[in-house]
Amino acid sequence: MEKPALPKGTRDFGPLAMSRRQYIMNVIRDVFQRFGFAPLETPAMENLSVLMGKYGDEGDQLLFKVLNSGDFLKDADPSLLTGRNSKALTSVIAEKGLRYDLTVPFARYVIMNRHEIALPFRRYQMQPVWRADRPQKGRYREFYQCDADVVGTDSLVCEMEIILMIKSVFRQLGIDAYTIRINHRDVLGGIAALVDAGSAQGTLFTAIDKLDKIGVDGVRKELAGYGWSEKQLDRLFEILSIKGSNTDKLDHLNRIGTDVAKKGIGDLREILALLDAYGDSDAHVEVDLSLARGLSYYTGTIFEVRVDGAAVGSVSGGGRYDNLTQAFGSRERLPGVGISFGLDRLYDVLDELGRFPDARGLSTTVLVCHIDAASLRYGLKVLSALRNAGVRAEIYPDEVKLKKQLDYANKKTISYAIVIGPDEMTSGQLGFRNMAAGSQEKKTLEAILEHLKA
Amino acid sequence: MEKPALPKGTRDFGPLAMSRRQYIMNVIRDVFQRFGFAPLETPAMENLSVLMGKYGDEGDQLLFKVLNSGDFLKDADPSLLTGRNSKALTSVIAEKGLRYDLTVPFARYVIMNRHEIALPFRRYQMQPVWRADRPQKGRYREFYQCDADVVGTDSLVCEMEIILMIKSVFRQLGIDAYTIRINHRDVLGGIAALVDAGSAQGTLFTAIDKLDKIGVDGVRKELAGYGWSEKQLDRLFEILSIKGSNTDKLDHLNRIGTDVAKKGIGDLREILALLDAYGDSDAHVEVDLSLARGLSYYTGTIFEVRVDGAAVGSVSGGGRYDNLTQAFGSRERLPGVGISFGLDRLYDVLDELGRFPDARGLSTTVLVCHIDAASLRYGLKVLSALRNAGVRAEIYPDEVKLKKQLDYANKKTISYAIVIGPDEMTSGQLGFRNMAAGSQEKKTLEAILEHLKA
Repeated sequence: MEKPALPKGTRDFGPLAMSRRQYIMNVIRDVFQRFGFAPLETPAMENLSVLMGKYGDEGDQLLFKVLNSGDFLKDADPSLLTGRNSKALTSVIAEKGLRYDLTVPFARYVIMNRHEIALPFRRYQMQPVWRADRPQKGRYREFYQCDADVVGTDSLVCEMEIILMIKSVFRQLGIDAYTIRINHRDVLGGIAALVDAGSAQGTLFTAIDKLDKIGVDGVRKELAGYGWSEKQLDRLFEILSIKGSNTDKLDHLNRIGTDVAKKGIGDLREILALLDAYGDSDAHVEVDLSLARGLSYYTGTIFEVRVDGAAVGSVSGGGRYDNLTQAFGSRERLPGVGISFGLDRLYDVLDELGRFPDARGLSTTVLVCHIDAASLRYGLKVLSALRNAGVRAEIYPDEVKLKKQLDYANKKTISYAIVIGPDEMTSGQLGFRNMAAGSQEKKTLEAILEHLKA
Repeated sequence: MEKPALPKGTRDFGPLAMSRRQYIMNVIRDVFQRFGFAPLETPAMENLSVLMGKYGDEGDQLLFKVLNSGDFLKDADPSLLTGRNSKALTSVIAEKGLRYDLTVPFARYVIMNRHEIALPFRRYQMQPVWRADRPQKGRYREFYQCDADVVGTDSLVCEMEIILMIKSVFRQLGIDAYTIRINHRDVLGGIAALVDAGSAQGTLFTAIDKLDKIGVDGVRKELAGYGWSEKQLDRLFEILSIKGSNTDKLDHLNRIGTDVAKKGIGDLREILALLDAYGDSDAHVEVDLSLARGLSYYTGTIFEVRVDGAAVGSVSGGGRYDNLTQAFGSRERLPGVGISFGLDRLYDVLDELGRFPDARGLSTTVLVCHIDAASLRYGLKVLSALRNAGVRAEIYPDEVKLKKQLDYANKKTISYAIVIGPDEMTSGQLGFRNMAAGSQEKKTLEAILEHLKA
């Protein structure tokens, strides 16, 4: 039989990777809950009528489609089969697809449960999503998103809360050097007006979004290629290079700005003022006039977080939108603002910076070892006492040489081993071995429990 | 636009249902980890070559298959298309399927990572699985399984550990009245020999597995239909009705038993003895000679758990198998024993028995309310103090009437509201409202934090 393999772009997460992922997810979940966000889970499969048309043509191509059960060809038009038209046949033989992001299912949930939901609705959702992208380094076909959104309010308090949540997550993860870049679609609109972008706003935003990757020269070249004049480009980079504190930047832009930017400047100022009123500050927060976040559906404030000195790009991003349920044709305006943390990127950053808790802290704490049948039996009582004290403990279940048991403890990064033989059973003085140090001393069970509690 | 809908057999889990599911999963995860089990996650999609043939013909039919990306018809044999052969075409246009259980992916993981794994390998896995079953009450197309397995050992200590884990889970969930039924395949084999079942063992086990549902008369009728004699049936029910303590039953069976049952009787006795050595007992454990768990791949001890007086059937089950990786043609013998908890059934039981924690305990603890712009601002500092003390807290983000804010708190089952207006800002005596009682008193922020800590 052939050796089994994983579908490309997918991964297993073994004990260490999973413990570390749980560590990150627990931090994020803890912060979301402390800020009043309630959990939601939606099914992995959605009807394709819900998913199609929500992510653009490219997105439709990247949806994983699930074959209808049973004799799916029964009602297929023969011409679809003979014509070898994969796309047309898909709509006949597949009604369901895998979740592509967490926002569309959230919007679908809100529409279907509108009358039970208390607005403003703060929900968080941490689930895998699937995209039939070409797999490459750091890009997978299955990955987790960790989203929090508030809908049903225009209040800028929510923007402040998102900044506070980002700060809490990074504080709990032990990351000190990071930047929360913020901007506003109206500020971008104002800049577009100031450089006479006319109807080419989209081109402009897409280009300046690449500043990090291709630099000023690259962006100039790209826009010049679209027919932008030297004068326009000089003016653009004069604005984008406004220096100073966040307030300085906003004041400067306000002086030169058009009416278009007014609301955006006002919103950003208010968010900074609210942070101050909360007793926090704009530390880690940088108004970045070049932050555009593509041609997304954002209509107000936008956010993006980068960890200083880390190889990966943004580890979190989000923004304000005017109507969550618009794509479903809902007439009720449900404005909101959301943030998404990328679990894989946070994992890579913590790994790169060496900020994960020690592997021994994530594994079993104590392995009970024994040298014969009687000490195995005796060890069961020790095991029981450890677990009753809340200690993660296990016993080596087979009668094998002590060396094999200790090798197992090392391989599983277990912190301590308790070694029991005839002498230890008689004296009650058990062997207590620190696996990392390789040192062993005699201790009573009570003393061991005391030690582990401390 | 049509109102969006869920694929049949799938569900959303809103805030209350999710909080309760998290509560159950946290209990199970906590127990698994305390017993030294390490987490594993595998991808939702597996290659169909991994899944097919592992669950029988019916299982193959119930697999959800994922359409290949791109122009999947390109290389399809024209005769498959014109012949309208859904089954044959599937193997050409779908290479991947959704996970059907957690055992086959676990076996696949072990084979692929055999050299990094420390044996005995204790892993737990809590993920959704998908089955294209006909949806009905209590049966879904997407549901969670919570599995723990130890592989690489024959030790009966592992069977004891599984019984202890089941007890821990039920103790933590506050369920006192439940029964862990245990039996052994060799005991069943012995009974089959005693009633001269010959090659009809499978028929016998399938029939007695239905005792709960169709009763003695039903089972007699079914077996009589297969040609069993009255004498055989009398003998069968004489054995199955052996009464007494667990030890009595095993002793009785030992006296009348054949050699076939010897190992099974010995194993069950040893498991009970190990429970005693651990300092536990056979409370909640019942040797049940009629427990068969179908025609599964179990080869040793089998388990099944029922909650007394609950409408649903078994909430947990498992057993010992001879070789986890056999289905993949592996020659290395990897014996193991596992247990699976059904999240949905545990949910239904807790709901039926009213044993879930109060909804208020699962939601936000405090809502900060305000009556004007200045008190909203003041409220931000209060909010900050609450969260720094670890309290789950939120502020109503908009300036709306107090009644609307309190309605929101009630709808979200928030425990307390802090009400702030001009007087409260001046005096520092904030309104502290117990939402369940509807009572309100004046307290300083410090006094409120003290109260919440207690």
